[in-house]
Amino acid sequence: MNAGYDTSIITNHHEAALTQARELRQLARSGQFTSSTSGFAPGLAQGNVVILPKSWADDFLMFCQQNPVACPLLAVSAPGKPILDTLGDDIDIRSDVPEYRIFRHGELSEETNDISDLWRTDMVTFVLGCSFSFEDPLMRAGLSLRNIDCNANVSMYRTNIEMNPSQYFSGNMVVSMRPFKPADAIRAIQITSRYPKSHGAPVHIGHPEMIGIHDLSQPDFGDAVPIHDDEIPVFWACGVTPQLAIANACPPIAITHSPGKMIVTDISNDTLSIF
Amino acid sequence: MNAGYDTSIITNHHEAALTQARELRQLARSGQFTSSTSGFAPGLAQGNVVILPKSWADDFLMFCQQNPVACPLLAVSAPGKPILDTLGDDIDIRSDVPEYRIFRHGELSEETNDISDLWRTDMVTFVLGCSFSFEDPLMRAGLSLRNIDCNANVSMYRTNIEMNPSQYFSGNMVVSMRPFKPADAIRAIQITSRYPKSHGAPVHIGHPEMIGIHDLSQPDFGDAVPIHDDEIPVFWACGVTPQLAIANACPPIAITHSPGKMIVTDISNDTLSIF
Repeated sequence: MNAGYDTSIITNHHEAALTQARELRQLARSGQFTSSTSGFAPGLAQGNVVILPKSWADDFLMFCQQNPVACPLLAVSAPGKPILDTLGDDIDIRSDVPEYRIFRHGELSEETNDISDLWRTDMVTFVLGCSFSFEDPLMRAGLSLRNIDCNANVSMYRTNIEMNPSQYFSGNMVVSMRPFKPADAIRAIQITSRYPKSHGAPVHIGHPEMIGIHDLSQPDFGDAVPIHDDEIPVFWACGVTPQLAIANACPPIAITHSPGKMIVTDISNDTLSIF
Repeated sequence: MNAGYDTSIITNHHEAALTQARELRQLARSGQFTSSTSGFAPGLAQGNVVILPKSWADDFLMFCQQNPVACPLLAVSAPGKPILDTLGDDIDIRSDVPEYRIFRHGELSEETNDISDLWRTDMVTFVLGCSFSFEDPLMRAGLSLRNIDCNANVSMYRTNIEMNPSQYFSGNMVVSMRPFKPADAIRAIQITSRYPKSHGAPVHIGHPEMIGIHDLSQPDFGDAVPIHDDEIPVFWACGVTPQLAIANACPPIAITHSPGKMIVTDISNDTLSIF
């Protein structure tokens, strides 16, 4: 027993988040939760999902290795293994994501809430860190997140920032954007620098046109949010980036999460921070 | 002996900087160096200087304690003691600053290169950390500093940011400004966060009018530098702030360094970084 220091508050917070993560995955599994996961299970890592046949997976692993800011790997499964032991309790990647996108020959063909019927023994799952994971430390530091205040999905945009290509995969970076007052933007840079597995520090601030974004009110993914005159748009690399790389690579089949609708893990972000 | 690791490069770099610091102080002492100290003795801390009679010094110490971002204390001397042992070898604060400003009853009355004739047994010296100290780590990270590229003094501005007042001292913050491309601005925020004794992270980015600066081409202290369209102005708290507080407090006498012309110490910045 630690005399004078009550750890139950921390324990209870973590337990509550774990309970919510597991409930959310169960609701996703049964098709009852199909929304953005932003703001859920605070303190626990959320992940982008890419599922590819083994014959494409090896080269996608190389793509991730060469683009660690956009594609920070939290887990890579063995072929055909749908249970992701290292990320939490009873995570079945075939059903526990709120919504999936199926790409056939690089084209988005459908969205679905369960991919059990598409599963094959050669399917390899990649889980990539997500910027939602640093939203909790930003809020704990007193920063407001417009997407959460608006109950909206975060705004995401295609950019002109070229990724390092692998043999099959290439394309430009997708970024998420959150507007902040200047002092809060500085604080957000400090805080997110601690979380390289959640894309780390921003890749850009202030001049969206420099990265090929010409109208912030027209995001390519997610929802638009208001940006005030005294705010600066802050851009982080986004795990939707692989979806563009898949469109360029044209594998016969690829499965991803739908933007903003992530796999919620049991991993505490604090265990992933670097300082 | 460390087999396989040659520390002489590090040692030689540090020794060269120490030699330059000591030569610069000797040249300042003899009146031969009267310029901005930016870029000199890379890796060693530089300091803002405030010298006050003991009857004012106690309240100024309180002012510094309440405003640690603008006024990070590196040293406070005993009354009447001009040699600053803790900051380096043979530092005489009466002569080793390239240029001094004498304030009488809050008004700037003269600039001089030696204050020996003004020294009194009740004079207390404050040395405050300076943003020049983080210019070396910024350059080592590959960032260009416009003031150094232009061989100019850094641009400094009065702001509308109010300091926390002490009994006698009050006023608004002075900031230094350096323009960077967005990605470099992000990196500069990360790097300078490590150096709280050199004002730490910026206090503002991007919207100078929000902090009361209406024309970047007209700095209140130092020199104007060009800012390009694809750059963001980044603002750090500045150790010239006390000079405004002195103007408000109106002590019969106060002595400071001239903006940009600092006391160069023997202290390695790396010993002052927090991570």
